[in-house]
Amino acid sequence: MDIVTDDVRTVEWTGDGLRLIDQTVLPDRLEYLDVRTVDALVDAIGRLVVRGAPALGVTGAFGVAIALRETADPAARDAAIARIRAARPTAVNLAAGVDRVLPFADRGADAVLAEAQALLDEDVRGNRAIGAHGADWILARTGDRPLRVLTHCNAGALATAGWGTALGVVRELHTRGRIDMVYADETRPLLQGSRLTAWELQRAGIPYLVQTDAAAASTIMRGLADVAVIGADRIAANGDTANKIGSLAVALACAAAGIPFVVAAPWSTVDLAAATGAAVPIELRAEAEILAPGAAPAGARAFNPAFDVTPARLVSALVTETGVLEISRGITPATSR
Amino acid sequence: MDIVTDDVRTVEWTGDGLRLIDQTVLPDRLEYLDVRTVDALVDAIGRLVVRGAPALGVTGAFGVAIALRETADPAARDAAIARIRAARPTAVNLAAGVDRVLPFADRGADAVLAEAQALLDEDVRGNRAIGAHGADWILARTGDRPLRVLTHCNAGALATAGWGTALGVVRELHTRGRIDMVYADETRPLLQGSRLTAWELQRAGIPYLVQTDAAAASTIMRGLADVAVIGADRIAANGDTANKIGSLAVALACAAAGIPFVVAAPWSTVDLAAATGAAVPIELRAEAEILAPGAAPAGARAFNPAFDVTPARLVSALVTETGVLEISRGITPATSR
Repeated sequence: MDIVTDDVRTVEWTGDGLRLIDQTVLPDRLEYLDVRTVDALVDAIGRLVVRGAPALGVTGAFGVAIALRETADPAARDAAIARIRAARPTAVNLAAGVDRVLPFADRGADAVLAEAQALLDEDVRGNRAIGAHGADWILARTGDRPLRVLTHCNAGALATAGWGTALGVVRELHTRGRIDMVYADETRPLLQGSRLTAWELQRAGIPYLVQTDAAAASTIMRGLADVAVIGADRIAANGDTANKIGSLAVALACAAAGIPFVVAAPWSTVDLAAATGAAVPIELRAEAEILAPGAAPAGARAFNPAFDVTPARLVSALVTETGVLEISRGITPATSR
Repeated sequence: MDIVTDDVRTVEWTGDGLRLIDQTVLPDRLEYLDVRTVDALVDAIGRLVVRGAPALGVTGAFGVAIALRETADPAARDAAIARIRAARPTAVNLAAGVDRVLPFADRGADAVLAEAQALLDEDVRGNRAIGAHGADWILARTGDRPLRVLTHCNAGALATAGWGTALGVVRELHTRGRIDMVYADETRPLLQGSRLTAWELQRAGIPYLVQTDAAAASTIMRGLADVAVIGADRIAANGDTANKIGSLAVALACAAAGIPFVVAAPWSTVDLAAATGAAVPIELRAEAEILAPGAAPAGARAFNPAFDVTPARLVSALVTETGVLEISRGITPATSR
């Protein structure tokens, strides 16, 4: 059933459990974590062993199978599934992945596993399509020059079941020989950009430079980037896009510099139940992620939202597996799907 | 000769050398570095033991005295002074501090010391005036509510000879009982915000929250800040403002949210020889500041500009020791001084 797309297996069912690349120890070591209990799964999601909206969706779907294998008691099973569903709040995909396989639960764990695997395969195929649509759209607007692409956080193979969304677009551009340089924002506080995106780009042989998140606006305003491409954790019906904290500053700079701000995400990221970005819950993470010893005075407090919301008017293009919506021109997901 | 303003003595002449607060070990320890040679001074400036445009100006002025005490040979002395002058490129103050005392060099080290001390005293007096002007301007525009102020990097007592520029405004607002909360951007890669600004605010009893640089735009766009106040490393004749990397994103967000973006800096920061921000040299610092082990793959490269340039049109107010210029409304330093 596997579709081999690249050598990064972010989420994989091994026959007796879920094997996750442990993203907390990248880029130093490529290690896998085998998860066989709901407790371990919820812990892994909370610690960001696995992260990224589409990867969380697939993980949630397989998680239902783990819950079914763990207990036959309906109440305990439902409680376990609810815990998985709520293990992180911002990405709609996690809950959607759970909900996708729930109708198969009465037929047993194997039926759930088959549906979860179908979701995984669809995700990879969708990412390939996103890459192609995104590359087409960008190249139609940037002419013949090799491109300088800026990205934030990690919307790569590690954030999905494979290939990636934003990095899927970058991989496709690279396949077409059109990447000059990728600027990878380091993405504080957990450094998904410098740890994960840089790791993926290096593995794929794509030239890149790591920069601080604070440098992104300047890189864009100085004319060093031709386009910014990011992923999304949840997209509201009006096109407002929740993504990793720092995305909004990239979008503001793109608008000021007149370059495209491109969001690459599967349709499963679109939450039509959220009318605008104001309806998207923003996860507040632990202060300790920022307040490392030596980095702040003892007793300091921190404000650590994990996501921000980019208004639809700043989103030049939403690249989905079915095509490109030019959100800032007024074509919203709700009306054009 | 000292003007006692607060308990932070960033730069102080001890009688036989320059005593600097070692800002590289804050906030864990308050340690002083006694500098008695030009080599040690240039090294301290390069390692950011002392940093911040006005503090560098005072340090440069005292540095000339160190050079005079070190050698009587005119050629060696001139070379030493040139090295101090060029120890960091972006802040105009460093070179200006050196140039300020050079006319006294022929009268000997004591005359230079007296002039350097005068510069230090002027800086503190100027910062007090900046604080008062800035607080007046801000309060006239924000009404009676306690204010949420966002700041980036450190433009405090540690960046100056005392009291601070941007933090001078914050200290003055706090003295008037008008601070609700200060959002302090951590300021990667060297964390001057979470290490130094947080340390100063904590010491002064001013409520604050540390946040990632990436969070700044979102905090502003969500309506959690009433005003942003930053310092400046060099201001061009048209009002374009070079400051710590990440300031530009704050300015873009303030413009989008309709809140004031305030630059607090002494007139010595204005470089009328630079027609626009394009003429300001932007220091590229070592890649290793970003590429810590574990934070990026082995072999990764980084792009590490230390400053960015905020276009004049985004600067709501330039608060100087002589008053406030409303730059974005078309009043430029060159025409209004």
